[in-house]
Amino acid sequence: MAGKKPYEKNRAIWMAGDGPDSDVVVSSRVRLARNLRGMPFPQQANEEQMASVFAQIRAAVEATPSIGPTEILTLQELLPMERQLVVEEHLTSPQHVQNVENRAIVLNRDKSVSVMVNEEDHLRIQTILPGFQTDEALRLASATDDAVEETVDYAFDETLGYLCACPTNVGTGLRASVMVHLPALAMVGMVGQVLGAVSKVGVAVRGAYGEGTEAVGNMFQISNQVTMGRAEDEIVAHLKAVCGQLADSERNARKAIMSDARNQLEDRVWRSYGLLTNARIVSSDEAVRLISDVKLGSDLGIIPGLDPSFFTVLSVDIMPAHVQKFVGKELAAWERDMYRATLIRERLETRKEEQ
Amino acid sequence: MAGKKPYEKNRAIWMAGDGPDSDVVVSSRVRLARNLRGMPFPQQANEEQMASVFAQIRAAVEATPSIGPTEILTLQELLPMERQLVVEEHLTSPQHVQNVENRAIVLNRDKSVSVMVNEEDHLRIQTILPGFQTDEALRLASATDDAVEETVDYAFDETLGYLCACPTNVGTGLRASVMVHLPALAMVGMVGQVLGAVSKVGVAVRGAYGEGTEAVGNMFQISNQVTMGRAEDEIVAHLKAVCGQLADSERNARKAIMSDARNQLEDRVWRSYGLLTNARIVSSDEAVRLISDVKLGSDLGIIPGLDPSFFTVLSVDIMPAHVQKFVGKELAAWERDMYRATLIRERLETRKEEQ
Repeated sequence: MAGKKPYEKNRAIWMAGDGPDSDVVVSSRVRLARNLRGMPFPQQANEEQMASVFAQIRAAVEATPSIGPTEILTLQELLPMERQLVVEEHLTSPQHVQNVENRAIVLNRDKSVSVMVNEEDHLRIQTILPGFQTDEALRLASATDDAVEETVDYAFDETLGYLCACPTNVGTGLRASVMVHLPALAMVGMVGQVLGAVSKVGVAVRGAYGEGTEAVGNMFQISNQVTMGRAEDEIVAHLKAVCGQLADSERNARKAIMSDARNQLEDRVWRSYGLLTNARIVSSDEAVRLISDVKLGSDLGIIPGLDPSFFTVLSVDIMPAHVQKFVGKELAAWERDMYRATLIRERLETRKEEQ
Repeated sequence: MAGKKPYEKNRAIWMAGDGPDSDVVVSSRVRLARNLRGMPFPQQANEEQMASVFAQIRAAVEATPSIGPTEILTLQELLPMERQLVVEEHLTSPQHVQNVENRAIVLNRDKSVSVMVNEEDHLRIQTILPGFQTDEALRLASATDDAVEETVDYAFDETLGYLCACPTNVGTGLRASVMVHLPALAMVGMVGQVLGAVSKVGVAVRGAYGEGTEAVGNMFQISNQVTMGRAEDEIVAHLKAVCGQLADSERNARKAIMSDARNQLEDRVWRSYGLLTNARIVSSDEAVRLISDVKLGSDLGIIPGLDPSFFTVLSVDIMPAHVQKFVGKELAAWERDMYRATLIRERLETRKEEQ
């Protein structure tokens, strides 16, 4: 590990920019699952085969001028904490960093494109943009996909479409997802009903860190369920329509609360702000919940001087690996809870002074 | 009521000064129950008799030079809200202001002495001082009692002692009480055990507003149970010893928490501070609980710049009638909760700016 530079870079653009509809939509993501023809899927492949896949994909992505200069993160070369950092930034999946050999992530400069090598599939092209930009995310992913395809030969079946390790991805290999913040629907007790309704029209609802993660702080990842039998743009258009309706429902709930229970809302928002600016021990779950309240208060003009990206950045920076990066060393859980509280106070103090 | 000046005066000295042992002991109080010979107790007396009692006591108290100039609060002339103010200041009992005719309170300038006229007994001489000053409170009460006795003829029996409306007061007519703040004993889960033990040695434990009120914010009123068969100074000496032990137990609990769970304590104290400085709706019970935490933090040097009297004054000023006095009009309960939050924020803001 000696001589290796630590993983410390610019913010991903999805965190740094606001993006359209950022009052409700945090980010938009597209990922395309692809595999190389004639090569076993990663789970069945031997070391040599995986190394070959890695080399081919690396060469192909580096030859893709549309996404700009790239950087390769070889998982084996990263410290465990650094791998966790990349997961917390939503640039790869928690599953991908479980086994590290011959696994890598290729990132472009602003991290709008990340290509996971030897995840469940040989490659997964992910694009992630701030706010409600599903079309743009699909365009960027497709352009990257086309460029890679010029160099490598994808496993593709005329009838089935793109072949994938998991049958649910066969077809387009596309998963588009939108991260939405629905605090007002949650407050009025309607979030279960509304998300239940959308899950009947072919979309899946998950927590912020994907499959199997719980929704904390009213952050929900809304994604398509069907990958086969429909064109990419149809899939994305459907998801876009559903999320547009969700955003409208959320905005209506916010209006209703502001007109019927403004005092109660202000009280809740300021209490959460008071806890964030004063607590000395904060778990990541509690932090996410409090940040959710304060973000809502900011979106509704109750708390001034904070923009959507402030909350997006903070939501990532309070995650365990990021807190350890902030302190510069590994920490036990109880220490993280203390330093997390310090980090949050510093951020909010800095913002206050800037005004 | 026209032309009457509103009840708006200087702070009672028990609130304005610190007093000895003010880290644990908020105030010390003594009251002597007395009745006039040959006159029915207030509950049995007719209007004329009560008026006569009022006139005699008023004359007697006004002729008492030791307590300085006095003021008469005739309950009938006070607005209901003003009567409540006096109760919240601990200058009379909630029972006294239930019926107002021929009932009054005679106060000296710093409110260390208040004489309730036609409460359960014809007169009750109360003295209240800041901190742990039971001896001084007894001295002041006895001096007032002696001076009044020079003018009026008390109902006194050689065997029984002073005769009172309620048998439990017959004898010395003395109740001495000490208001103690026991947050650390509460935190370590020992407050029930410790108070249970002291109640076995002849002292009673009540909430801050006396009989039938619940202890909120870890404030307990400790008073003697026996009034007969013992001299006044013995009764007070016993109470003083018990409260001294309670204060030691509380201080030991504080030391234990500071050495074993300082981080958790700091977190709790600062969270309560954060809620007090940010909440928009606060009930009086919640306010008292939060103030209890912050006072503990201040006593232990965790939160700087606040002295014990700040909390004593605030604890009274957040009570319902005081909040209405602050706003200058009658308020519904939900409005009080909002203005209470405003009042608390203003006070803490002012303190912060003064530093």
